[in-house]
Amino acid sequence: MTGNGAGSNGKLMDLLDEPVPGVGTYEDFNTIDWVREKSKDRDRHREITSKSEQSTWALLHSISDAFSGWLLMLLIGLLSGALAGCIDISAHWLTDLKEGVCLSGFWFNHEHCCWGSNQTTFQERDKCPQWQSWAELLGGSSEGAAAYIVNYLMFMLCALLFSFLAVILVRAFAPYACGSGIPEIKTILSGFIIRGYLGKWTLIIKTITLVLAVSSGLSLGKEGPLVHVACCCANILCHLFTKYRQNEAKRREVLSAAAAVGVSVAFGAPIGGVLFSLEEVSYYFPLKTLWRSFFAALVAAFTLRSINPFGNSRLVLFYVEFHTPWHMVELVPFTLLGIFGGLWGALFIRANIAWCRRRKTTRLGHYPVLEVLVVTGITALLSFPNSYTRMSGSELISELFNDCSLLDSSQLCDYNSSENSNTLPDRPAGPGVYTALWQLALALFFKMLVTVVTFGMKVPSGLFIPSMAVGAIVGRLLGVAMEQMALNHHDWLIVKGWCSSGADCITPGLYAMVGAAACLGGVTRMTISLVVIMFELTGGLEYIVPLMAAIMTSKWVADALGREGIYEAHIRLNGYPFLETKEEYGHKTLAQDVMRPRQSDPLLVVLTQEGMSVGEIEGVIADTDYSGFPVVVSQESQRLVGFVLRRDLVISLDNARKRQDGVVSASLVFFLEHAPPQPFSGPPVVKLRGILDLSPFTVTDHTPMAIAVDIFRKLGLRQCLVTHNGPMLSHRSLQPLASMSVDVGT
Amino acid sequence: MTGNGAGSNGKLMDLLDEPVPGVGTYEDFNTIDWVREKSKDRDRHREITSKSEQSTWALLHSISDAFSGWLLMLLIGLLSGALAGCIDISAHWLTDLKEGVCLSGFWFNHEHCCWGSNQTTFQERDKCPQWQSWAELLGGSSEGAAAYIVNYLMFMLCALLFSFLAVILVRAFAPYACGSGIPEIKTILSGFIIRGYLGKWTLIIKTITLVLAVSSGLSLGKEGPLVHVACCCANILCHLFTKYRQNEAKRREVLSAAAAVGVSVAFGAPIGGVLFSLEEVSYYFPLKTLWRSFFAALVAAFTLRSINPFGNSRLVLFYVEFHTPWHMVELVPFTLLGIFGGLWGALFIRANIAWCRRRKTTRLGHYPVLEVLVVTGITALLSFPNSYTRMSGSELISELFNDCSLLDSSQLCDYNSSENSNTLPDRPAGPGVYTALWQLALALFFKMLVTVVTFGMKVPSGLFIPSMAVGAIVGRLLGVAMEQMALNHHDWLIVKGWCSSGADCITPGLYAMVGAAACLGGVTRMTISLVVIMFELTGGLEYIVPLMAAIMTSKWVADALGREGIYEAHIRLNGYPFLETKEEYGHKTLAQDVMRPRQSDPLLVVLTQEGMSVGEIEGVIADTDYSGFPVVVSQESQRLVGFVLRRDLVISLDNARKRQDGVVSASLVFFLEHAPPQPFSGPPVVKLRGILDLSPFTVTDHTPMAIAVDIFRKLGLRQCLVTHNGPMLSHRSLQPLASMSVDVGT
Repeated sequence: MTGNGAGSNGKLMDLLDEPVPGVGTYEDFNTIDWVREKSKDRDRHREITSKSEQSTWALLHSISDAFSGWLLMLLIGLLSGALAGCIDISAHWLTDLKEGVCLSGFWFNHEHCCWGSNQTTFQERDKCPQWQSWAELLGGSSEGAAAYIVNYLMFMLCALLFSFLAVILVRAFAPYACGSGIPEIKTILSGFIIRGYLGKWTLIIKTITLVLAVSSGLSLGKEGPLVHVACCCANILCHLFTKYRQNEAKRREVLSAAAAVGVSVAFGAPIGGVLFSLEEVSYYFPLKTLWRSFFAALVAAFTLRSINPFGNSRLVLFYVEFHTPWHMVELVPFTLLGIFGGLWGALFIRANIAWCRRRKTTRLGHYPVLEVLVVTGITALLSFPNSYTRMSGSELISELFNDCSLLDSSQLCDYNSSENSNTLPDRPAGPGVYTALWQLALALFFKMLVTVVTFGMKVPSGLFIPSMAVGAIVGRLLGVAMEQMALNHHDWLIVKGWCSSGADCITPGLYAMVGAAACLGGVTRMTISLVVIMFELTGGLEYIVPLMAAIMTSKWVADALGREGIYEAHIRLNGYPFLETKEEYGHKTLAQDVMRPRQSDPLLVVLTQEGMSVGEIEGVIADTDYSGFPVVVSQESQRLVGFVLRRDLVISLDNARKRQDGVVSASLVFFLEHAPPQPFSGPPVVKLRGILDLSPFTVTDHTPMAIAVDIFRKLGLRQCLVTHNGPMLSHRSLQPLASMSVDVGT
Repeated sequence: MTGNGAGSNGKLMDLLDEPVPGVGTYEDFNTIDWVREKSKDRDRHREITSKSEQSTWALLHSISDAFSGWLLMLLIGLLSGALAGCIDISAHWLTDLKEGVCLSGFWFNHEHCCWGSNQTTFQERDKCPQWQSWAELLGGSSEGAAAYIVNYLMFMLCALLFSFLAVILVRAFAPYACGSGIPEIKTILSGFIIRGYLGKWTLIIKTITLVLAVSSGLSLGKEGPLVHVACCCANILCHLFTKYRQNEAKRREVLSAAAAVGVSVAFGAPIGGVLFSLEEVSYYFPLKTLWRSFFAALVAAFTLRSINPFGNSRLVLFYVEFHTPWHMVELVPFTLLGIFGGLWGALFIRANIAWCRRRKTTRLGHYPVLEVLVVTGITALLSFPNSYTRMSGSELISELFNDCSLLDSSQLCDYNSSENSNTLPDRPAGPGVYTALWQLALALFFKMLVTVVTFGMKVPSGLFIPSMAVGAIVGRLLGVAMEQMALNHHDWLIVKGWCSSGADCITPGLYAMVGAAACLGGVTRMTISLVVIMFELTGGLEYIVPLMAAIMTSKWVADALGREGIYEAHIRLNGYPFLETKEEYGHKTLAQDVMRPRQSDPLLVVLTQEGMSVGEIEGVIADTDYSGFPVVVSQESQRLVGFVLRRDLVISLDNARKRQDGVVSASLVFFLEHAPPQPFSGPPVVKLRGILDLSPFTVTDHTPMAIAVDIFRKLGLRQCLVTHNGPMLSHRSLQPLASMSVDVGT
């Protein structure tokens, strides 16, 4: 067997020449060829396996190669978990810094500061002399209008400072660090190359600015960016292992796992994280990756737990424990929450995309720093007076999810106790609850408006937390309403059957949870992964049915109003090439209707396997901008031999001119297996069999586009050649994936 | 646009003729063409959507069509859940019938019988006057050697009766009802057709015989067969909906969901069930199916819970609640359990396959009824004296998983209480524990031996429970050993750091659970789904790490000793065509090395698009046994036009002879788009453009087989044509999937 026996591998190895550096790599903003990458890896693996029988050293190398994937996963888990812990701790501290300072050490946050104090009672856990609000520190008093204004001003000042630092750092060092990162990661995982998007600068700046952005009180979360951070870690760690450094497909397997790690540390939900990666972001997700992702996600979750950023040894962000079972009748309000979630999701996507488009097309986009400062200023100004907007998004959600226990001092739990205060059966709302409801309603409108303009600014911003907050508020409002209705109208028919007088039948916290899931589902269109994340928060199968009812309704409603989730919408807005795997291709066209060149265009540009000179080929390259050229037997027969990529061709010809003596424009180029020997007179020939893909994918011109799109998706092709009536190569070729997907989308 | 514009759809519709009945269907024991089925469904969907704009009725039809998938899932969930509940209840009752009868109603099982009794104390829950053992009923006494012998005999008699009934019913009515069914379902899901395997008779007989087989005390479980039962339900319910009845690919999506339902009802683990289907049995599992499977699995789990077969309102089969956290040092024994699990898994597979091969090849296979009776007899004989083998497999596992509480009366919990008996800190083993350990060790050897010969007999038999039982016994033994070691040697270095004197640091129940997972993992090679199933049993993320350590070790050890899991091994043993999706194709061959006909064989048989007569084509069909023929422009040019399936050709020619006047052997056959008009003289022509696949898949002869296999797997092809040097159709074609997979396997 000669070199060409390796088929598509043949382009990588030429037995006559050394492999040319650069051949087989990709340019920035290009799509990778999954088939080529996978066969590269297969060859590498085969080589190592066959060598391993020769010496002990090679055997060790083979074993270490086999385990390098697991080692990499371990490292990703450890690093991401540690980073997430640091982010949590710093964000907590900075958030508290907006309100005051700890005297016993400025690096303590409010909670840690008061741990050391003996003077705190259980009721007033968060009041201790060591912790001083800005008013106390600067003005000496903690009461009165003046103190309030001082605190207000310091709150706004800190918020503006943090967000200013965040946006300046992003603009100065790593423009890719802004936004949530999930749309871009989805695109990268589907095979696109964006150099630097997962680099070390992005990692460092995103980590720092994420803390600043979260602390500034903007309506954004850290969950999406944590996925980006985990993917950066993975990409950087990939450089330690040849196997992953040199293969774009293998690296994308690792990145899929890293996406799972990101969600795992964000919510403390490893299984949910893996399913999120599978359902939402990944393109190619073999079973091996599933298992490894799970391992990495677990390692990360446990690393985070050992750091213990929440100080409660809980793995999960919002730990909830409900005691009352739900009743079938409650499915009606749960479904209502689902409808609200779907409506809000669809509305949010439209409003946000419209706003982002405005930012792109109008002068608004020219002043990103000013925009961030204005939004931060307004957010801080409006959020300080209302305690539910002043607290951070995750604290708010925690409070809303919480089921009131007897010792709870929260305003939301201010129920009028009945005579025996040891139990909590019949709970008429007290004045605190009514105040809380009003504040929550105001907070809801505020959150809804401000989130639309926040997501997409030039700071790291996730929207899991804001979406969940909106849903949780609505859910809690509905929950309290239901609770009071059931309480005051025990005799109503719909209540009678299951809620006897004096019993506590409705858990408003559960409504908040269902609402949060519904809104998040409406915005992101996640389904099973969302259910599992929520399941991992509560740990009980009991509440899966309400969650599923709400999430399903939400998805259906949102899908009816617009097919795209927020991430797909942003991918389209940014014009990334992405072939949606979830949508069915609905049109009834054939490959011949879609392929380029069209009937009216000039003929397809092809190269012949012999007889063309270097100058001629360079002319073809200069005249056209196709990313590759079919190679045929001769111009007359048009019989297809193979396909050669533009980039490989350019690099190889340059290389030949530089390294091979006497190659001039008149030198002949041969793609033949057995090129003729060098002529005695005349310029030497250039042999390019090595870069020729001998197994290009072909379809007939009668192939329905639905099947062609399926082939592109499933095999991860860059291009596909169209043949007519069997042997005769058609004078057309399908455009590469990038343009295909645009065709598909419209 | 004319009819041929529909591409591969063109073969289904011919604008000139009515579609011929039978064209587009498959024969038994054949592989479906996924691409064809999917484009059929796409066309159907497109038609309904385009019609829906015309009338309200069509719009309603379109909506009902869109929701029929969900409705089907709901029905599958309800039916499977109900059936699983019935199976659980009847198996429970029949199992108890081996030991005695309830006087207040023979249809009560032991537990229900004693519920009504007021004379039972908490300590002696299972002793009540209404429940009479056979000895009491027949001999009047419940003590003494005579009573023991009477009970022993009745136990054996019932066991023999049940297993006899089971094997007779299976043989008489539904031979497909035997075994676990999972290997066959895997094969069916990959595209193979086994008619009747999922039919109503199989369902009825499998349900009945499963109850009998489980009750007979044989070492088998009902989990695998429940998957089969759920798939039968799904298949039968598919007939209610045109969409699923007429499309083999769509039906397989539903069957994938049904597999999830099966595991969901078996363990009460809906998420684990979905992952089981994804990881272990499914071939084509789009995201839409994932979500629907989850819905169906949940519905089934809740139906089962409302039936409440275990009488404890628990969803899960083995509910466990542990209180003590585990320590890092314990990972060493957990890994040891993993190694044992892997060894046992590999050994079991070898032994079981060797035994099954013996059954196939020797005279043993001619006496299935006798075999079942002998195995049942021996099992019953040996299992009665030992209480751990006498109880059913799931009871045994429950008991072994159980963490001893203060009130536990089990022998395994017979610890010497310390002075203050209110707490359970320091637990030196009492005499009961030592007796239990001996009995467990005997039970272990018994189970290990008897399971090997049981799995594969002509009765329904799953091996989840027996595998888990083996692992649980080993785990419990190791757990108790560790516990006593830690107790008696608090000063040892490895114990010192984390287990202070007087503390209860080791949970033997957790060891049993880890051991069970390891053994099940070794046998089936499940990974993530197994972890999730176990996680759903305990509901705590705490114990995922021990489980994962054990399952990973088990998989690595087992894989090192043999790549195949038990299901793959049985698929290969039975010679089903199955293209393993998990394995990488490792050989460095090209399509030209693998394709048929080989270099030395006669030329490829092709049809020409015009000029062949009916007689000639019938001759080609009679002379060869290929499943399809390439159609070329002419014998000289060999330019490929399309591909026609043997079955479609046979049916169409028969049809033409029957229905079309004057068609004789001399009639010419045209595959052309525009066939010439009927000649005035001579026999009429037969137009077969309609059955021609105009978009056959082609690869070049230089395509590496690894890529070709990937294409087969991912697109679900039946055949693929090999072309040489571009246009010229090679005189070879790859064999259809069935033979391909055999090539791949060796």
